[in-house]
Amino acid sequence: MPWFKNLIKISKTITNQSSSYKSITPLASPLLTQFLQFTKHYSTNHHVVGLEATKSDQKPRIVVLGSGWAGCRLMKDIDTNIYDVVCVSPRNHMVFTPLLASTCVGTLEFRSVAEPIGRIQPAVSTQPTSYFFLANCNAIDFDNHMIQCQTVTEGVETLEPWNFNVSYDKLVIASGAHALTFGIKGVNEHATFLREVHHAQEIRRKLLLNLMLSDVPGVSEEEKRRLLHCVVVGGGPTGVEFSGELSDFILKDVHQRYAHVKDYIHVTLIEANEILSSFDDRLRVYATKQLTKSGVRLVRGLVQDVQPEKIILSDGTNVPYGLLVWSTGVGPSPFVNSLDIPKAKGRIGIDEWLRVPSVQDVYSIGDCSGFLESTGRQVLPALAQVAERQGKYLASLLNKVGKEGGGHANCAQNINLGDPFVYKHLGSMATIGRYKALVDLRESKEAKGVSLAGFTSFFVWRSAYLTRVVSKRNKFYVLINWLTTLVFGRDISRI
Amino acid sequence: MPWFKNLIKISKTITNQSSSYKSITPLASPLLTQFLQFTKHYSTNHHVVGLEATKSDQKPRIVVLGSGWAGCRLMKDIDTNIYDVVCVSPRNHMVFTPLLASTCVGTLEFRSVAEPIGRIQPAVSTQPTSYFFLANCNAIDFDNHMIQCQTVTEGVETLEPWNFNVSYDKLVIASGAHALTFGIKGVNEHATFLREVHHAQEIRRKLLLNLMLSDVPGVSEEEKRRLLHCVVVGGGPTGVEFSGELSDFILKDVHQRYAHVKDYIHVTLIEANEILSSFDDRLRVYATKQLTKSGVRLVRGLVQDVQPEKIILSDGTNVPYGLLVWSTGVGPSPFVNSLDIPKAKGRIGIDEWLRVPSVQDVYSIGDCSGFLESTGRQVLPALAQVAERQGKYLASLLNKVGKEGGGHANCAQNINLGDPFVYKHLGSMATIGRYKALVDLRESKEAKGVSLAGFTSFFVWRSAYLTRVVSKRNKFYVLINWLTTLVFGRDISRI
Repeated sequence: MPWFKNLIKISKTITNQSSSYKSITPLASPLLTQFLQFTKHYSTNHHVVGLEATKSDQKPRIVVLGSGWAGCRLMKDIDTNIYDVVCVSPRNHMVFTPLLASTCVGTLEFRSVAEPIGRIQPAVSTQPTSYFFLANCNAIDFDNHMIQCQTVTEGVETLEPWNFNVSYDKLVIASGAHALTFGIKGVNEHATFLREVHHAQEIRRKLLLNLMLSDVPGVSEEEKRRLLHCVVVGGGPTGVEFSGELSDFILKDVHQRYAHVKDYIHVTLIEANEILSSFDDRLRVYATKQLTKSGVRLVRGLVQDVQPEKIILSDGTNVPYGLLVWSTGVGPSPFVNSLDIPKAKGRIGIDEWLRVPSVQDVYSIGDCSGFLESTGRQVLPALAQVAERQGKYLASLLNKVGKEGGGHANCAQNINLGDPFVYKHLGSMATIGRYKALVDLRESKEAKGVSLAGFTSFFVWRSAYLTRVVSKRNKFYVLINWLTTLVFGRDISRI
Repeated sequence: MPWFKNLIKISKTITNQSSSYKSITPLASPLLTQFLQFTKHYSTNHHVVGLEATKSDQKPRIVVLGSGWAGCRLMKDIDTNIYDVVCVSPRNHMVFTPLLASTCVGTLEFRSVAEPIGRIQPAVSTQPTSYFFLANCNAIDFDNHMIQCQTVTEGVETLEPWNFNVSYDKLVIASGAHALTFGIKGVNEHATFLREVHHAQEIRRKLLLNLMLSDVPGVSEEEKRRLLHCVVVGGGPTGVEFSGELSDFILKDVHQRYAHVKDYIHVTLIEANEILSSFDDRLRVYATKQLTKSGVRLVRGLVQDVQPEKIILSDGTNVPYGLLVWSTGVGPSPFVNSLDIPKAKGRIGIDEWLRVPSVQDVYSIGDCSGFLESTGRQVLPALAQVAERQGKYLASLLNKVGKEGGGHANCAQNINLGDPFVYKHLGSMATIGRYKALVDLRESKEAKGVSLAGFTSFFVWRSAYLTRVVSKRNKFYVLINWLTTLVFGRDISRI
C-alpha cells in the first residue's frame, strides 16, 4: 500500500528527532493534523489516507456500512472470489435481536445472541484485502466513490479517535435505524432501549441491583414498590416479549430467589394504542389475556415526560419506576438524515433493485432504506425478515454484476440486473412468556391465513429461531441455555 | 393492584399542590438525615435502623462480611436450623478466581466462573430472617455487636447510597485483601487487575478493541506494535496463567481471526524475581521453557512508573503497551487497616480457633486474616485453599457452638471449641497454556513430593477445578465452554 509507505516515511522523519517510544504521542498528532489537512483539501487534491480506489486488475471492493441483519446476510453470501469485502460498523458482531429480550433476565447468555462478523464472513479477518473496521461512517462522497470514517474507541484509553477514508466500487448502506423517542424529554437520559447487547446488559444489571437494594433495611415500602416497578413503554413485539420474559422471571425465579421482596415487583406495559397491532385480532386478545394472567399490567396511555424516578402520562398520571425500558419503534438515524439523497418517509430512497437511483454503485437495505414513491411500492416495515431477504437478494445481484464484469466503480450501467426485489411477508411471531407464543402466518393484516397461539406456537417460535441463529456454535449455546434455564432456573449473578 | 391505585391516589393528591413524585427524593433525605442522627447519637441511645439484636427466643444471627472463597465456603456449611445468615458484600456472587484468567480470552464464559450467593446458601434469599445485602461494611462497633453498612449502587441512577446497621451474634470478617501496587504511580489509573469478573471483562474488551483498532488504515507500525503489546506485571500463578491463556489465544485464534495484525501482537511478562517462586525448581524451569516457546517474553525487571501508553522500568527502559495487567499479589485492604484490633503482618490477628481474641464473637478467615505471633504460627499464604479450609473449619466450629447453646452474643465463653484449626498444604497448580500445566503436590517449598508438568498435569488441573466449581450448573457450563472452545475456537464478539 503506497499511501502507507508515505505515512511511514513521514513518521520516520519525525522519529529521528526524538527517542523512539517517547515519540509515540507526539508522532500521532502531526500525522493527524497532516491528513486532517488532506481531508480538508481533499476535494482539490485527491490524496487519500485509507483504502485507495481499486485498480482494474484488482478485485473490486464492496463496502458495507453496518453489521445488522441486512448487512450481515449480504456479507455472508458475497462471493469473495469476485469481491473484496470491507465492513464498517461500530459493532464487531451481529445481534440476533429477536432473542435479545431473553438475555435481560438470564434465559439466554449475551454471547449466545451475538455473532462476530468474522464468523459470518471469514474473509474480513483472513483475506489480505478484506477488512472489518470498528468505526463510524461520518460522510459519503458519492462523486468520488469514497466514505469518510472515524474509529470507535468508546473512551477506552488506548488510541485517539482516528479518521480515515475508504474508496468503494460498490457501497451498501445498511446502517439501520434509531430508536424513536418522539422528542419526549428524559427518554435518552433515564430509559433503556432494547436494541444492542449492552442495552440488555444494562437492563439486567439494573434489575438485579434494584432487587437487592429493595431488600436493604430502611428502604420505605413506597420506595421498594418504585424500585421494583418495571415499566415497559411500547406494545410492539419487543415490548411484549420483554414483558413476558420479565413476568416469567418474576414468577419462576424472583419468587424463589428474592422471596423477601417478591410481592413488591410488578411489570407495567404502557402502549398508546393496542399491543401487537400487526397481529391478528384473535391473537391480540389471547396475548392480552395471557399477559394479564401472568401479572403484567397493561396501561393505555401516552407518555408525556420522563423523569429520573417516574414518568408522567398525558392524563397527568404519575408512574414511578425503578426500571424503564423504551421500545416504541425506530426511525431514521442522524447519519441517514445527513445524506443529501432522495428519501422515502425519511429513509434512504431505493428503487426495485435496492439501488439509490440518484448516484452510481450505491445500494441500501434494511431499516435505513425505503422504496421511493416512483416505484409505486410501500416502504417495508423495519423487520428482521425484510432485512434478511434484502441482504440475500442484493448479495446475489452484486455477485451477478461482478461475474458479468460490472464489479468496479461505474461499470455496471449496461448490465441487466435481472428480476427486481419482491417481498413476501412470511408472518410474524412473538413470545408472551410462560411457554406461550403467537405465530401469525398471514401475508398481510387483512389476508386470511393460519394463526397459532399457545404452547404449539411457542414450540414453533423456538424451533424457528433456533434454526435461524447463525452459527452452529450459537445454535448449540442457545439450545444449552434453554435447557439449563429449564433445569437449573435462570442465573442471577450480577456481573 | 391496590398499592398502585394508592400510589396514583397519593400522587393525584400531591399533584394538586406540587407534581407528585418529586416527593420521593425529599422522602429519602429526611429518613437519611434522621438515622444519620441515630448513628451519631448511637453510642448514647441504642436505637438501630437496620437489623436489631436478636432476642434469646430467636435464632442467633451470623453476619458474614465478604463473598469470597472463605465467606462462601463458610455460609455453605452453616446450619441454618441453628443460625440466621446475613451476608454483607459489594458483590452478589463468588468468583471462581483460579479460572478467571480463562474468561479474558473467551475460553470460558464470565457467568461460568461466578456463583450467586443465593445458590451457595439459599437461606439468604428464601428464609425470612436471613439476608444478602449488596453493601460495604464501613465500621464495626465490637462493644455493641453491630456493624455499620452502606449500600453499593455503582452510580446507577436508582437510589441514593443508603446507610444501615446490622447487629450480630457472631461476626465473621472474610472481606479479603486488596491488590498490591507498591505505591507505584499510575497503576490504579492505567493497569487492570485480575481479581473480579468485571476486571476480566475490561481486559477482554480492551484486547479485542486493540486488535480491531490496529487494523485500521493510518495507524503507524510503531503504534500497531504498542496497541498489541500485552504486558503482564507479576509472575505469580495469576500472571503466568493469564500469559499462558493469552499466548494460546494468539496462537490459535488471533492467527486465524485477525490475520492482518497477527505479527504485531506480543505478550511480555515482567517479574522482579523469578516466576512461580512457590513452585519446585524443576517445574519453574519447565514453565519458563514452555512460556518462551509459546511466544511469551519473560523480562526480569522492576516497574518504576506507569504512564498511559508505556511503563518505565527501574533501569530506565520504556515498555510501550496497549494492555497492562497487574497481578503482583495482595495486601491488607483499607477496611482492615481501619479496624482497631491487633494485626499480624497488617492482617486481622486471629488465634488457633480463627477468633479475634481481643473482642467477643468475632472471627476472621481468608486473605484478610493471619495468625497472631502469640500463636507461634506462620501467617498463611493468600490462597484459595487456605480460605476454603478455614471457611469449612469455622462453619463446623460455629455449628458446634450453636448446638451447645452458645449461638447468641456473649454466650460462647464457656464452650469447649474443640480442636484448633490446622492447615495442611495440598500443593499448588498452574496452567501455562497450550494444554500444559504444573502440579506441585509437595507440602512445602523444602519438602519432597510429587510434582508433575505437561499434559497429564493439565488434565489433573482441569479435572481438579471442574470438580471444585461450586454448582452443578457451573460444572456443566465450564465443561461445555471447554468443549466448544476445543471444537469452535474462542468467541471474539466484543459485547
